[in-house]
Amino acid sequence: MVVDTSKYVIGVDFGSDSVRALVVDARTGEELADDVALYSRWSKGLYCDPAANQFRQHPLDYLEGLEACIIGALGKLGPEVAQNVVGIGIDTTGSTPGPVNEEGTPLALLPEFKDNPNAMFVLWKDHTAVAEADEINQLAKTWGGPDYTKYEGGIYSSEWFWAKVLHILRKDPTVREAAYSWVEICDWIPAVLTGTENPQAMKRSRCAAGHKAMWHGEWGGLPSEEFLVKLDPLLGGLRERLYEDTHTSDQKAGDLTPEWAEKLGLPAGIPVAVGAFDAHMGAVGGGIAANTLVKIMGTSTCDVMVGSYEEISAKTVAGICGQVDGSVIPGMIGLEAGQSAFGDVYAWLRSVLSWPIDAIGPEAGLTPEQQSMIKDRILVKLTEAAAQIDPEETTVLALDWLNGRRTPDADQKLKGALLGLTLGTDAPRIFRALVEATAFGARAIVERFREEGLQIDQVNAQGGIPGKNEFVMQVTADILGMPIKVVRSTQATALGAAMFGAVVAGLFPDIAAAQAAMNSGFAKEYQPRPEFKEHYDRLYAKYHQAGELLGDTLRQL
Amino acid sequence: MVVDTSKYVIGVDFGSDSVRALVVDARTGEELADDVALYSRWSKGLYCDPAANQFRQHPLDYLEGLEACIIGALGKLGPEVAQNVVGIGIDTTGSTPGPVNEEGTPLALLPEFKDNPNAMFVLWKDHTAVAEADEINQLAKTWGGPDYTKYEGGIYSSEWFWAKVLHILRKDPTVREAAYSWVEICDWIPAVLTGTENPQAMKRSRCAAGHKAMWHGEWGGLPSEEFLVKLDPLLGGLRERLYEDTHTSDQKAGDLTPEWAEKLGLPAGIPVAVGAFDAHMGAVGGGIAANTLVKIMGTSTCDVMVGSYEEISAKTVAGICGQVDGSVIPGMIGLEAGQSAFGDVYAWLRSVLSWPIDAIGPEAGLTPEQQSMIKDRILVKLTEAAAQIDPEETTVLALDWLNGRRTPDADQKLKGALLGLTLGTDAPRIFRALVEATAFGARAIVERFREEGLQIDQVNAQGGIPGKNEFVMQVTADILGMPIKVVRSTQATALGAAMFGAVVAGLFPDIAAAQAAMNSGFAKEYQPRPEFKEHYDRLYAKYHQAGELLGDTLRQL
Repeated sequence: MVVDTSKYVIGVDFGSDSVRALVVDARTGEELADDVALYSRWSKGLYCDPAANQFRQHPLDYLEGLEACIIGALGKLGPEVAQNVVGIGIDTTGSTPGPVNEEGTPLALLPEFKDNPNAMFVLWKDHTAVAEADEINQLAKTWGGPDYTKYEGGIYSSEWFWAKVLHILRKDPTVREAAYSWVEICDWIPAVLTGTENPQAMKRSRCAAGHKAMWHGEWGGLPSEEFLVKLDPLLGGLRERLYEDTHTSDQKAGDLTPEWAEKLGLPAGIPVAVGAFDAHMGAVGGGIAANTLVKIMGTSTCDVMVGSYEEISAKTVAGICGQVDGSVIPGMIGLEAGQSAFGDVYAWLRSVLSWPIDAIGPEAGLTPEQQSMIKDRILVKLTEAAAQIDPEETTVLALDWLNGRRTPDADQKLKGALLGLTLGTDAPRIFRALVEATAFGARAIVERFREEGLQIDQVNAQGGIPGKNEFVMQVTADILGMPIKVVRSTQATALGAAMFGAVVAGLFPDIAAAQAAMNSGFAKEYQPRPEFKEHYDRLYAKYHQAGELLGDTLRQL
Repeated sequence: MVVDTSKYVIGVDFGSDSVRALVVDARTGEELADDVALYSRWSKGLYCDPAANQFRQHPLDYLEGLEACIIGALGKLGPEVAQNVVGIGIDTTGSTPGPVNEEGTPLALLPEFKDNPNAMFVLWKDHTAVAEADEINQLAKTWGGPDYTKYEGGIYSSEWFWAKVLHILRKDPTVREAAYSWVEICDWIPAVLTGTENPQAMKRSRCAAGHKAMWHGEWGGLPSEEFLVKLDPLLGGLRERLYEDTHTSDQKAGDLTPEWAEKLGLPAGIPVAVGAFDAHMGAVGGGIAANTLVKIMGTSTCDVMVGSYEEISAKTVAGICGQVDGSVIPGMIGLEAGQSAFGDVYAWLRSVLSWPIDAIGPEAGLTPEQQSMIKDRILVKLTEAAAQIDPEETTVLALDWLNGRRTPDADQKLKGALLGLTLGTDAPRIFRALVEATAFGARAIVERFREEGLQIDQVNAQGGIPGKNEFVMQVTADILGMPIKVVRSTQATALGAAMFGAVVAGLFPDIAAAQAAMNSGFAKEYQPRPEFKEHYDRLYAKYHQAGELLGDTLRQL
């Protein structure tokens, strides 16, 4: 392994609201500087209609943000750093596809489409394509050919590539006519930086294709033309204007163009890695390896594992979102699971409890500052109070599916519940039950992985929650019955992207070597408390049983 | 029917916290004046231990309150009214028994017992006798003789006479030795006023005996000596020091003694009716009649019906608290049901939502007045907001058993639930679901009465809720699918007691005649809205089904 002590890499992480650039010392993994740029149009709510679950992002938000955050991060360091940047890795949200013309230019960058939301990128959480997802699921199970949803958990989501593409094609004839092909932003950003936008030349992300576009080697890539035309003749001919091959992120998408090099103040010609989704590069930044589950815990969770070909081979892991060869670490099967709501469940309770402050506070003479102060303190105070409650002395059991259930066994129609309420049930007891429920949701995923033959020896946690709430982490460790190590880096996703930048720069032979050198280590480790094991085993059984009993009721409400 | 236009009667209503006297014009039912006296020792929390569910009341609280409120009410009127009072009716809480000596004096009135809570009246909501109630239920089902719980819903409660008596006898040897007999306060107060305290002479309330002491004609009165001794030898010999006969409240307990007449400023010798429980006299004040359900709606509800001998005869109405010949209207079977929590369910939500105000308000600089103002407004604002929500557009379904379930099919181990929560569920939606759930609980009682062959044509409502919350009343009417008439009098319980006073005074031949002359009429009538019928029928079926599915889970939490 050859490491030049003066080599730097940049990881770029496109999130839902902003893009972050992180400059890393490739020898040590030391995080030298970072900068965040908000998407300016998005932050004004443009092109979105939350009531209709329509969330679109303008490509200029990405380009402007990309430039601003890289320049911003480098600006915090001396010029010698920028001159010694040797590689760039990029991760993005997904599935976030958008239509492009024959040159690979997103339609919204053309004057005639500049304000058309249907010509923009359809953000992962856009749910306008529910009907199309239903049709895909229906057809995949009945058409007589392969069930293309097989490696994507068996249930295609309205959040994913084909549902969104079909929805836009049906909905907007002008876009339909102008769209030559479609790209994920994790395909498009590296292509822009390297001048490889031509849709057929562009190196497509294995991670995006495999997890969201039903691409798999078993059936020779994307779903067949026959299937797509059966789904809707509008899709006819699109398949050959998309892609056959896909690429893992240890490969380079191309070399930085002189134009972008000048714009960013970087050396021209440095390699840019093929893009991937944030959770997958994040898992790399968080120490993913065989038998290690990485949980990225924020408003929702992404739970990522890798399995060897021997463990997984051609079998499908039931009820898990997706499994794709090389989507996380090249040479292993990447497995993605997750919980539809985690921190969002706690935020929900805060919002419910804030209602009197908002509805009555003003007429009681509270200042806006007082209102904010109370609302901002609710979760802190609830946490303090809930931590004092003996888990065996409360009667409340919650089901955590307030945003449906992503895994195991995706079911967006499920809903949340609070059971065992008494006149003595107070807000901290409700909070405690919700924390336990999100941990039970985490445990259900772990148990499913195990039932499907995967071994889990270690849980690594990163994201917004682990650094913020010790009580949540401790209860999660208690309920999982496993230690949880909290990744030290608070920017593990961008750090993971930087590791891919280091690999395509040739600094490391593979991702494992980059991880060994560049990992941030762990800030803390939570041990499960044995005195609660029996109680939580019993309560988990009740959680599981109540979910089974109530499933149909919750779906129909 | 002979009515003297210048005759007045007094209804006295002993509640949980205070006693109220109401002076009524017996010709018209016009409520001339009333006064309320708090129980002074009780209001200081004396003799109680809420953490242990121990709630005891000192007999002096009753005597002092009785005197104060009658004098207070009469003092608001000219002396000619007091001189023309011709009868007194009395209702009380129950089962609220206390030990008395051979003279019928409550032990707590003797110097050596004056501070001993076990020598006082054991208030209806005292739950110290849970173990004894379990033993009674166990024995009644297995001992080989009659199931004495048969006419009391088949499940004996820790709130009732024998459980409490046995608990005190076991617990306190000094009381055990000194207690010659036991009385309910509705037995004792009329006895005091009429000088008939001797335990064997005292006219015992049919209502109390039949609903709470397993007294029934079928087995010749109280449970047999054999049964009681099997339950515990400590009960040996008590039966014959209690009573054989019981009396309905259209009979007089006796005549007002000269001492009490002087104390109260009333004519000596006027008749005092046999006492009964508040809900039963309240139902009379609220217009109870064949095929009319009277709901007394407050923190909990009492649901009272009367059935003819032809309808009921010897059969038992399954899952209803009790059925007693003459307990409400002499000559009919009185049936008592109820919901363990009604307004308390809404108060629970207010309390949960108040948590941030209490926990964080002070550090955010809120004054105590601001805190109170917000908390006091919560239910008003929630009501306004919930009334705006289309019932078909919310996904939340609640189970209302936050204080267990009283009827149908008593089960104190059941608990409440909120089902169908989503990230969009706000406080008004939760409130709406709780209101619907309490109405579903009301409907479950109505449906049970109907399944058991009783016809219900009309619902009359009284108590704290009907005058306070139109939204709750409208939703209840919608869900019952029946009109609800709100009794005009806000003191219908005391009014009902006054009607019994008028009957024993000979002003009316029976209760029906007194009701016809003295009823207060109705303040308002809520019609069920047909446009919601189908939705609520469907949702009620889900409520019922969810309760069946979840019963065991909720019991075990």
